[in-house]
Amino acid sequence: MPETTLSAASAAPSPLAPEWLGIPADLNRLAPALWAHDAERGPSGGLTLAGLAVGEIKTRFGSPVFVLSESDFRARARAFKQSFDTAFADVCGGVDVYYAGKSFLCTAVAAWVREEGLRLDTASGGELAVAQRAGTPGELIGLHGNNKSDAEIRRALDYGVGRIIVDSLDELERVARIAADRGTDTPGSAPDGSEAPRAKVMLRLTPGVHAHTHEFIATAHEDQKFGLSMAPGTASPGFSGAGAEGAPEGAASMAEEAVAAAAGHDSIELLGVHCHIGSQIFEPEGFEAAAVKLLRFVADMRSSYGVALPELDLGGGYGIAYVPGDTPRPPAEIAEALAGVVRETCAELGITAPRISIEPGRAIVGSTTFTLYEVGTIKDVVVDVPVGDLPASGEAVTAVRRYVSVDGGMSDNPRPVLYDADYSVVLANRTSDAPAQLVRVVGKHCESGDIVVRDAYLPADVRAGDLLAVPGTGAYCWALSSNYNYLARPGVLAVRDGDARWIVRPETEDDLLSRDMGV
Amino acid sequence: MPETTLSAASAAPSPLAPEWLGIPADLNRLAPALWAHDAERGPSGGLTLAGLAVGEIKTRFGSPVFVLSESDFRARARAFKQSFDTAFADVCGGVDVYYAGKSFLCTAVAAWVREEGLRLDTASGGELAVAQRAGTPGELIGLHGNNKSDAEIRRALDYGVGRIIVDSLDELERVARIAADRGTDTPGSAPDGSEAPRAKVMLRLTPGVHAHTHEFIATAHEDQKFGLSMAPGTASPGFSGAGAEGAPEGAASMAEEAVAAAAGHDSIELLGVHCHIGSQIFEPEGFEAAAVKLLRFVADMRSSYGVALPELDLGGGYGIAYVPGDTPRPPAEIAEALAGVVRETCAELGITAPRISIEPGRAIVGSTTFTLYEVGTIKDVVVDVPVGDLPASGEAVTAVRRYVSVDGGMSDNPRPVLYDADYSVVLANRTSDAPAQLVRVVGKHCESGDIVVRDAYLPADVRAGDLLAVPGTGAYCWALSSNYNYLARPGVLAVRDGDARWIVRPETEDDLLSRDMGV
Repeated sequence: MPETTLSAASAAPSPLAPEWLGIPADLNRLAPALWAHDAERGPSGGLTLAGLAVGEIKTRFGSPVFVLSESDFRARARAFKQSFDTAFADVCGGVDVYYAGKSFLCTAVAAWVREEGLRLDTASGGELAVAQRAGTPGELIGLHGNNKSDAEIRRALDYGVGRIIVDSLDELERVARIAADRGTDTPGSAPDGSEAPRAKVMLRLTPGVHAHTHEFIATAHEDQKFGLSMAPGTASPGFSGAGAEGAPEGAASMAEEAVAAAAGHDSIELLGVHCHIGSQIFEPEGFEAAAVKLLRFVADMRSSYGVALPELDLGGGYGIAYVPGDTPRPPAEIAEALAGVVRETCAELGITAPRISIEPGRAIVGSTTFTLYEVGTIKDVVVDVPVGDLPASGEAVTAVRRYVSVDGGMSDNPRPVLYDADYSVVLANRTSDAPAQLVRVVGKHCESGDIVVRDAYLPADVRAGDLLAVPGTGAYCWALSSNYNYLARPGVLAVRDGDARWIVRPETEDDLLSRDMGV
Repeated sequence: MPETTLSAASAAPSPLAPEWLGIPADLNRLAPALWAHDAERGPSGGLTLAGLAVGEIKTRFGSPVFVLSESDFRARARAFKQSFDTAFADVCGGVDVYYAGKSFLCTAVAAWVREEGLRLDTASGGELAVAQRAGTPGELIGLHGNNKSDAEIRRALDYGVGRIIVDSLDELERVARIAADRGTDTPGSAPDGSEAPRAKVMLRLTPGVHAHTHEFIATAHEDQKFGLSMAPGTASPGFSGAGAEGAPEGAASMAEEAVAAAAGHDSIELLGVHCHIGSQIFEPEGFEAAAVKLLRFVADMRSSYGVALPELDLGGGYGIAYVPGDTPRPPAEIAEALAGVVRETCAELGITAPRISIEPGRAIVGSTTFTLYEVGTIKDVVVDVPVGDLPASGEAVTAVRRYVSVDGGMSDNPRPVLYDADYSVVLANRTSDAPAQLVRVVGKHCESGDIVVRDAYLPADVRAGDLLAVPGTGAYCWALSSNYNYLARPGVLAVRDGDARWIVRPETEDDLLSRDMGV
């Protein structure tokens, strides 16, 4: 992406700016880490995506709108597949990359994922429905969920999904029972169910590794709803286990119990184990620690129970840059690091490396998309400067915060209010040489927490009618969007080669009222 | 509501329970403050609403489902209207109660509101569309919003809304312009706009009072997007004001500037001023402080500018009980306290009391509704007891947290993850004498933060297939609901006199895919 060379804005930092927020040397510049590769300033200074100007997008499609670069999506998907395939070629012959549909899914995305050689993770019967409508073959699909309904399990088995990621002992028994029962109802199956297609199962384990951004922590116990604990002593009272020699009684784990139980069910084909250690992870160490723990478990299960676990899914959580200063490692670097650890650990343990799979979602779709908003009301609000910043004289100090309102808000991006998530923003319809002004970009909802970008610098001449673009909104924005205050949810516009099409159309007022049953 | 007399459960408190959470003496009892007045245990022990059993609701309508008591809604609406009318009868002849549609709105609710003598607050063109479809007369409607579009303002004027609550100087000019322009296009108006219907305007002020639950704080400046500041010195540089004699130059407020500007526009009829000081407010003191501040402003504007402000809206924010121990004052108590302060302050200031209006939302609809869920996976998770609670021996201590999964989650109630909101829960399809078990009720979403009720005691024999009811979900649950993980949003079932009807039907899989434009 060519950088713009327009003149830099300069101003003193606002006393209200958070410490991490620097004033950009050039407010018109698009920081490459935050944008699709084909986003750039066009000849007239306006933001363009794949050659299409935001002014034209606004005119033809309105606002707010999610604007997604199809070629950037495909490139990021390919980059994951290729870099992990390359790094793991000698370890396990490559990696199965499952795109995590929960981050953003529609049938077009499911089709792109497949065309780029990836598989698809789904988190519910609804996400599975999208995959089915897109024609994604069942064997390329995984089904997640801590509380799958019987109907969801049946649907997955009917569609022949490649893996059900089982999350609890309860669910394991349900899947086994449904698969067995189903066998007898399936045309061509033997009445005793012996010829029923077996349910392909991965067991989701909690390895006691939590990672986020730069840090990971290791703990014996995880206080969360997901997974089967690997901690000793977590098995059911009735399960004695076949633990390593000399292991004390009652030292078996829930994970071990699940493996033994799965191996005992004729209706289940146990593929392997799975873990997911967090989100927005920038560094490889957390993934490495989890991989080592799960590989040891794989070796243990072979030696203690004679159970082979030929597949190992290391989950998702690969981070992206939301603001300048965020520096997630590129997929290739994490792949290299992780492949080294798997190679080494398997050699130490004397086991054949299992087939590795991963589940990136945000890291593929997050940066492909920006949200385009139109500026409305602008208000300069006098604010007391936080006490810590008061001058020694002790006099009360105030500063002005400029609130820039846009035509969307927490309904199209709830992440700032849900997770205190930071975003960045640029003036999109034009460039400006005006000095930098600290702003807070807010939405139009009747709620004071309705913040789109908590702190950012924009040119001081931003005015009503200007367009703003917030990058990094591809993941968990449309997916989490609501109709709060009866605002219609924006559509998702896929841009490629200078043209655009809706892959998800925007809502209309009729959509909003379609479920209202009248007075 | 009759209390049940089933035997009390008893058990030691879990070391994982938060301090405020006591073990109920009777787990089957419905704490009256949390429920609709016509919720009770039926003859067989199951929860009933207006005589309709949850078992029948589940069978006929499925789950999850929002179950709303129509007569409770009407009773709470009436209670607000009557108690404020009574308290303020001698002050200003009664109070206009605007139901805050942002908490939960559909056409049926709009109709009930009107039938019970209330008016309707809307927060967007979409909410206004619901009111229009319900046939709510324009003069009974208020339109809020910090960033109303021109289209929304035009729509409000076309429909003849009784008040546009103007939030900024920008907006004031836009409303004035649109109202004036519109005049010339309106059949029957004079070409110069002089006969155009005037826009009825309230000005939203920020009085520097923030209230929440038991406390309120007073501050000079408010760091938020809403309103016109009442703090001295916040007016535009060009506005000199007509402040009190001896006031220093530049001491005028943005609020004062807006009053002067509004009074200068022929196309605007300035009704009065408005404030909104917070949410989930239990005590009257914050409302009282804001009322005093605004009444002084009303007196000032009359003396300084000769501008009459005949209406005063004190906003919403009236709290409800979400868990036992929450003790919001009843509307009648707040009305009495507030009426006393208004009466006294107006006497002191020597002004006629303005007509008072209020905007309760949550306090009318919140407790009318419970969400009915079905239990799925149950998992006992071993958890490290927080360090502060470790015994003196220093040995590591663990306890078990029981995760009870239900068939909904953060998509139908994002408040726990958005605001750390606490809720309570009961076993709904039956009673139980089993001992109390600390549980965390979680949803079925692919996210570890997907919590429905963070901490509660339920009978230890709760099992898959049981029904749970979470009360207090009438406000800001359906309104904020999403399709995260492609889960269909539940419908809202209104129950009255033993029968039920959808007022908002549940989503279907076709609804979920209706905006998907294909591969």
